[in-house]
Amino acid sequence: MFSPDTYQNRRKALSETIEDGIIFLPGNIPVPMNYPSNHLRFRQDSNFLYFCGLDFTNLNLVMDTGSGDSTLFGDDLTVDEIVWEGDRISIKEMAGLAGINHFRPNKDLSKHLKTKKQTIHYLPQYRADQKNLIDQLFNGKGSSKNLIQSVIRQRSIKTEEEIIEIDQGMVVTAEMHKLAMLLTRPGAKEQTIVGQIEGFALSYGRRLAYPVIFSVRGEILHNNEYNNTLESGQLVLNDSGAESPMHYASDITRTFPVNGKFNKRQKAIYHIVNEMQFEAFNYCKPGKSYKDAHLKVASIAVEGLKSLGLMKGKVEDAVATGAHALFFPHGLGHMMGLDVHDMEGLGEDLVGYDDKKDRSDQFGLAYLRLAKELEPGFVLTVEPGLYFIPHLIDQWKADKKNNDFINYDKLDSYRDFGGIRIEDNIIITNEGYRILGPPIPKTIDEIEGLMEDNA
Amino acid sequence: MFSPDTYQNRRKALSETIEDGIIFLPGNIPVPMNYPSNHLRFRQDSNFLYFCGLDFTNLNLVMDTGSGDSTLFGDDLTVDEIVWEGDRISIKEMAGLAGINHFRPNKDLSKHLKTKKQTIHYLPQYRADQKNLIDQLFNGKGSSKNLIQSVIRQRSIKTEEEIIEIDQGMVVTAEMHKLAMLLTRPGAKEQTIVGQIEGFALSYGRRLAYPVIFSVRGEILHNNEYNNTLESGQLVLNDSGAESPMHYASDITRTFPVNGKFNKRQKAIYHIVNEMQFEAFNYCKPGKSYKDAHLKVASIAVEGLKSLGLMKGKVEDAVATGAHALFFPHGLGHMMGLDVHDMEGLGEDLVGYDDKKDRSDQFGLAYLRLAKELEPGFVLTVEPGLYFIPHLIDQWKADKKNNDFINYDKLDSYRDFGGIRIEDNIIITNEGYRILGPPIPKTIDEIEGLMEDNA
Repeated sequence: MFSPDTYQNRRKALSETIEDGIIFLPGNIPVPMNYPSNHLRFRQDSNFLYFCGLDFTNLNLVMDTGSGDSTLFGDDLTVDEIVWEGDRISIKEMAGLAGINHFRPNKDLSKHLKTKKQTIHYLPQYRADQKNLIDQLFNGKGSSKNLIQSVIRQRSIKTEEEIIEIDQGMVVTAEMHKLAMLLTRPGAKEQTIVGQIEGFALSYGRRLAYPVIFSVRGEILHNNEYNNTLESGQLVLNDSGAESPMHYASDITRTFPVNGKFNKRQKAIYHIVNEMQFEAFNYCKPGKSYKDAHLKVASIAVEGLKSLGLMKGKVEDAVATGAHALFFPHGLGHMMGLDVHDMEGLGEDLVGYDDKKDRSDQFGLAYLRLAKELEPGFVLTVEPGLYFIPHLIDQWKADKKNNDFINYDKLDSYRDFGGIRIEDNIIITNEGYRILGPPIPKTIDEIEGLMEDNA
Repeated sequence: MFSPDTYQNRRKALSETIEDGIIFLPGNIPVPMNYPSNHLRFRQDSNFLYFCGLDFTNLNLVMDTGSGDSTLFGDDLTVDEIVWEGDRISIKEMAGLAGINHFRPNKDLSKHLKTKKQTIHYLPQYRADQKNLIDQLFNGKGSSKNLIQSVIRQRSIKTEEEIIEIDQGMVVTAEMHKLAMLLTRPGAKEQTIVGQIEGFALSYGRRLAYPVIFSVRGEILHNNEYNNTLESGQLVLNDSGAESPMHYASDITRTFPVNGKFNKRQKAIYHIVNEMQFEAFNYCKPGKSYKDAHLKVASIAVEGLKSLGLMKGKVEDAVATGAHALFFPHGLGHMMGLDVHDMEGLGEDLVGYDDKKDRSDQFGLAYLRLAKELEPGFVLTVEPGLYFIPHLIDQWKADKKNNDFINYDKLDSYRDFGGIRIEDNIIITNEGYRILGPPIPKTIDEIEGLMEDNA
């Protein structure tokens, strides 16, 4: 946890944006796996972590923005619970760690809220338990719009201590990625390597920020199946990241050859993706919009694919019509913090766009999660990719979609190529950007070097 | 999955117990980790797995016990979903695998149920999402008591193919336990070993049946903290098990010395626990009650502790009054199957007791989850243990509880002993019992032998 002052200051800053109201922040409760007392691994709510840092089950936080008082609701363990589950610190001690001046048992929560005359504010919920609690407490009353905007504004700008936490947390992620490269070889199973890298994170007490993508079918963007055996000549795409001890995410992708050596065609596509990322980095500074960065990167993709004979026509026109999205169907990146898609539960448009109207409905560009002007303190992913998606190719070809820009005949020989994505996490500084975490092999030479040592 | 016939037969057998009614069985849906689209690892509902075996998200099953028809409700993926998440088999194919003759989209579920005039039966739910769905569909109407009893009767008797699945699934669990012993040494961290054994299970595509207990504080019965560094002279207790590919649990405990050699005091307590388990095994055959086995084991504990000067008085009296529960505060075991505490969500008393009135409220015995007469086909855990729980010792001593049976003075020197538990999983056969899965080092010689090879 950060110091009590950090959490006090965060709550104070939030309170100043909500005049004379009550903010209710429910913590997460355990989720049963297959019967009531067998639980899935606990993950505290990110907003709860942000405003009080307490990584324990069954807590609730109430802030009175008028008086500035906060009250932590929670229950100390009974002797029976201590015998079975072991001790945990008292609610009083928790309140102390988070700089909270009042604490009460959960049974008083409803009564406490009913005594309040002010408007009660709460955030959108993503789990059924918390939705039910909110329904039960407020029965549809209450207002949240101001609160959502205030929380997004506050969490969007990462402080120095948050950056240090993310930077240090990424040491485990970097080692996970190197381990994956070292374990990769023809005949190995995807599942084996996935288990070993998740186990590596777990052995440091870390959980994964999101389910691992590790596949020779890199063109399936959120592929969470690991049923393939790796074959020489294939590429494997590893998109995975561990949380920091305080649950800040990391989100890294590397793509590398199963046999440790890129072939000529793989090198050509890899170079284009690498250049896409390089150009994106150069674009990243305060005042620049991430939508422009995305479109710039799309034009690099078209130029590269033209040079390989896979696309044709005028670059600007191809990008304007969205023809590149056959190969680059997702956005350039997203905000990252306590959530890997930071604050997505509060509303992706509110986090990533100045105005909801700005969001395109064009295939590809529609998936861009972050479009607005970059500010110092933003932490985001930069993750260009190029994919050969048989399902999508067939659909577009049948529809003769973007025939002027795509050489469908030439494309046939790439159907089994898979996909390449390269992803890093950056902080926007006053001058430009800085890549977070320790370096992870990325150039063809670096990757082939690491994997050669292995053979 | 088993063959379509297996699931058809299970549904047929169940239908025969419910005359002319509708059985509604909701499958599990993904649970968000920290925002709607970032999910915790999916676990299908055990009853759903039992009656149709389909390990996919967002399915629902309706059985008409009058006609014998079943309908699978679910939705095929859109092209957009396939691009992002990859393909999965169609609902039609799923229905085929489970021997289900009808399939329809989820949007028809509510309408379909409303056309039914028969009583609708459903099981108790443990997640908020399914509780809400049931509330919304039936608004409190419907009946479940017959259904609960029928399902428990059916799932309690494991078939030959289920036993094979459990047996084979335990190969990974056995290797996990041996790996833990090989990794254990002074200076190692609990967290490191926990991560490595979970990673080992994951690398075989297995998930854990319940959160690992791996601790030098073995006396904390359900301890899920891993913050200690292992020290020479300590014992470490490892209670962990992987699920089989079809999600059958295993539940194994071994306790072993951090430095690979039991000291004299540890040997003495270990021998008692080993004898407790040995006597329990001898008791396990059809017609014997597991409550009697528990009490027999308690008397072995008292005899052993008397020989060490920790207890005194008449054995039968000590057991009758529950004095042994200071050292052996939990039950001898529980049913195991698709849930590690099998069917606990349907009602522990209904699973483990012939009559609810039979359950004791005495500390210790009250925690016995399985008490009734054993039948061929029952799969259960046999898990005696002896613990030195400072919190509990202090409480009893202050209350002068069972002063006639416990030598509190002598006990002082054992305060930091920790705890020992030995746990295996057995099937009740016509003649007696058989231990499931491959052997895992258990005797002092076997454990010291394996850990010596390591040093």
